[in-house]
Amino acid sequence: MSESLFKIIEMIKPLDEQAMAEAQARQNLLTKPQGSLGRLEELSIQLAGIQGRSMPQIKHKAIITMAGDHGVVAERVGNWPQEVTAQMVYNFLNGGAGINVIARQVEARIIVVDMGVATELEPNPQLLSRKIALGTQDIAQGPAMTREQAVTAVETGMEIVAAEVAKGLDIVGTGDMGIGNTTASSAMAAVMMGRPVAEITGRGTGINDEHLKHKIAVIERALGVNHPDPKQPLEVLAKVGGFEIGGLVGVMLGAAAHRIPVVIDGFISGAAALIAAALSPRLKGFLIAGHVCAEAHHRGMLNHLGLKPLLSLDMRLGEGTGAALGIFLAEVSARVLAEMATFAEAGVSQKDKADS
Amino acid sequence: MSESLFKIIEMIKPLDEQAMAEAQARQNLLTKPQGSLGRLEELSIQLAGIQGRSMPQIKHKAIITMAGDHGVVAERVGNWPQEVTAQMVYNFLNGGAGINVIARQVEARIIVVDMGVATELEPNPQLLSRKIALGTQDIAQGPAMTREQAVTAVETGMEIVAAEVAKGLDIVGTGDMGIGNTTASSAMAAVMMGRPVAEITGRGTGINDEHLKHKIAVIERALGVNHPDPKQPLEVLAKVGGFEIGGLVGVMLGAAAHRIPVVIDGFISGAAALIAAALSPRLKGFLIAGHVCAEAHHRGMLNHLGLKPLLSLDMRLGEGTGAALGIFLAEVSARVLAEMATFAEAGVSQKDKADS
Repeated sequence: MSESLFKIIEMIKPLDEQAMAEAQARQNLLTKPQGSLGRLEELSIQLAGIQGRSMPQIKHKAIITMAGDHGVVAERVGNWPQEVTAQMVYNFLNGGAGINVIARQVEARIIVVDMGVATELEPNPQLLSRKIALGTQDIAQGPAMTREQAVTAVETGMEIVAAEVAKGLDIVGTGDMGIGNTTASSAMAAVMMGRPVAEITGRGTGINDEHLKHKIAVIERALGVNHPDPKQPLEVLAKVGGFEIGGLVGVMLGAAAHRIPVVIDGFISGAAALIAAALSPRLKGFLIAGHVCAEAHHRGMLNHLGLKPLLSLDMRLGEGTGAALGIFLAEVSARVLAEMATFAEAGVSQKDKADS
Repeated sequence: MSESLFKIIEMIKPLDEQAMAEAQARQNLLTKPQGSLGRLEELSIQLAGIQGRSMPQIKHKAIITMAGDHGVVAERVGNWPQEVTAQMVYNFLNGGAGINVIARQVEARIIVVDMGVATELEPNPQLLSRKIALGTQDIAQGPAMTREQAVTAVETGMEIVAAEVAKGLDIVGTGDMGIGNTTASSAMAAVMMGRPVAEITGRGTGINDEHLKHKIAVIERALGVNHPDPKQPLEVLAKVGGFEIGGLVGVMLGAAAHRIPVVIDGFISGAAALIAAALSPRLKGFLIAGHVCAEAHHRGMLNHLGLKPLLSLDMRLGEGTGAALGIFLAEVSARVLAEMATFAEAGVSQKDKADS
């Protein structure tokens, strides 16, 4: 592990129990039956613990959407051409993708990062160019990347989130774009969760039964060729991961080190979270599952991480779309805690004490 | 049925199939795998059908929160004093309640209506005073209200939503406040759904086991005393309903007559929807279930209405809080449809046609 990565992991502290107790105490004074805002109350208390203050604030919001290509597309694991990764990056930069619309609605800025798209992209002031290589290698033939590249990917994510913290950041969402990245994510998840490949592999952007069987066979081959060790999370990333997935690992660790809540998106963010949480078990407390996506077995991944999704809307787009919706709910929860009147302030009677 | 109510029901037309087909066609051209935004795509198509245009618009948003008291509190069905209804109305007017915070976040205006609070409220420019009586009568002893009062309640809701339409309205959410109103709602639901009382009665603001048994017994007594006929929805409202619930029935019917989507909140709105949908079977197409609340059996109520909730956050506050969150998702869905780039516009390749 590199010195910088080691340092960030050391910086991740437990949640602030006192801030959480204070937030819970305030929730109980607000003009509503105790607990009647359900998950929103829980979320506000988690945010208090993460930010280390009894009244968490969600004003500065960002989605970090990382793009990378995957050599495994040579095995025909999906049904979209690789060029779509680059085309979608331009779509993000032009404001026309799903994540752009949802981020505008929740007033989150988007940071688009080229972590390893397979073509040279035109320079754009809104694009962070951090290309590690022109896509990963084919995992069915050998490792996706070198160990050094994996560390660079993670450290790049850490640096990017640190720069956003410097600009002002209260919450961050993770997003991804990369044709072939459900294949890499399934491979990573099978290893990290110790589950059979078939149990953790889904249809990605929508392949048919026969094609799914082929995808599973390719992933099994990748694991046989690389034999990644789940006790070595960076090795798993290097052997069967992706550049954008490594970047997201770094975003998660870096955000947690700075006490910034991280709303994770779907299946690809989940695979990154499995690696990040293995590097730092304390990370889990800083993660919020924006939604459970329609990709098969995403729920199992969240269960493994001990996370309960906020939304279940059958979405499977990625890009950070589910994370952006989760950011909205986080902001609502923080505002409820801060802005609702207490029983005393509003002159509202409380329920009969004898009865509960 | 009154002439005015009959006229509104006549005005409710089927969803616009052509607008829905056009919206679906556009969804399929947007830069994402088809269907990958799941429920958001479905919602945008429903909105198109309701508003009668292929690009539905959600800009002007309102929550109508209706308050009323219930004579059945004399039977000690809950654990909060009746004065809380009035106190919470003042809290709404002062901006300190849960619904105020969430409505601010989603930029929806709130219309607070006194449909029958048990005390005379101080005049307030933000309060619509439409008091039918100082609370309903005790349903365990006789009918909640007269048939004329029930019709007045429904017509009041129709008039209030029509006035909002005149100001500019693209979507409306329903909310309620009334100590004792889960008791009335359970009674109405048991009749309208033809289910045993125990199966449709929950803990409201949080009563214990013994208290729940008592609440069920009171509702059974109310049904025995009043024997409401499910084929006569207005009679059910009059015999075991509430003024605010009747008002919400009118809001739903009036909104649908003006082709305005209605996001319903929790258990009380659900009871109102059962009456409204029985008066006009076409109404269902205009309803969106904001969430499934933590009140027992709300999901069964939504199933009965053929509605699938957008959110499931263990909320049970009422006031329109779940509806307000649903309005946010409706706005997101409409913006996605309107603002995302098509494959052609963005120059993004489509998936291989041979494979799906």
